[in-house]
Amino acid sequence: MPNTAPRSDCPVARSLSVLGDRWSLLVIRDMMLFGKRTFNEFLESEEKIPTNTLATRLKQLEEAGLISKRAYQDNPPRFQYELTDAGAALAPVLRAFRDWCRDHYESTGNAASDRMSG
Amino acid sequence: MPNTAPRSDCPVARSLSVLGDRWSLLVIRDMMLFGKRTFNEFLESEEKIPTNTLATRLKQLEEAGLISKRAYQDNPPRFQYELTDAGAALAPVLRAFRDWCRDHYESTGNAASDRMSG
Repeated sequence: MPNTAPRSDCPVARSLSVLGDRWSLLVIRDMMLFGKRTFNEFLESEEKIPTNTLATRLKQLEEAGLISKRAYQDNPPRFQYELTDAGAALAPVLRAFRDWCRDHYESTGNAASDRMSG
Repeated sequence: MPNTAPRSDCPVARSLSVLGDRWSLLVIRDMMLFGKRTFNEFLESEEKIPTNTLATRLKQLEEAGLISKRAYQDNPPRFQYELTDAGAALAPVLRAFRDWCRDHYESTGNAASDRMSG
């Protein structure tokens, strides 16, 4: 997984090494806020994650220890995903993004007004 | 900027449309915590952002209204970047990533122990 190799000891950089993409935190959101657990449920989210991207992200999140995968049916095999403690501990990150968007980004029309006065 | 087109109205997804990559929040960190302002100062950070990636990210952050660019010298032209109000408002996002890494990710050896019990 070259994409997730840490690039420094900075805790922000280390977080972004595993979560710094457009999709991983949306999968975490789907599990945390909407109770989604299966591959097909993640695919149905309105952001329309591509199938191969979802497979890659689930594998990376599992290898990083943020989600766990287990079979809930054998024949045919079916899997579901759950947040680990480390994954569930991302709630403050999701809240920070939500609050920033609502209070400082979306509210100003993608912050264009800040640019004028910046 | 096809990369930054919002994919839904979810405020987390909208935040990630502009900040969901491995580098943008590190540029914000460099400005906020280390007082960096110039292209060369960003290049010197230990994560070693590639030159073309930095140019693209600065342009996207400026177009999103999170940073502003101004010339501080005419001949030869030299530019420096500053956080707008919307960019400075990302401090809680950086803190959330830092705290999560320290308390729930790094502390468990990339959360492997959570995976075992998850």
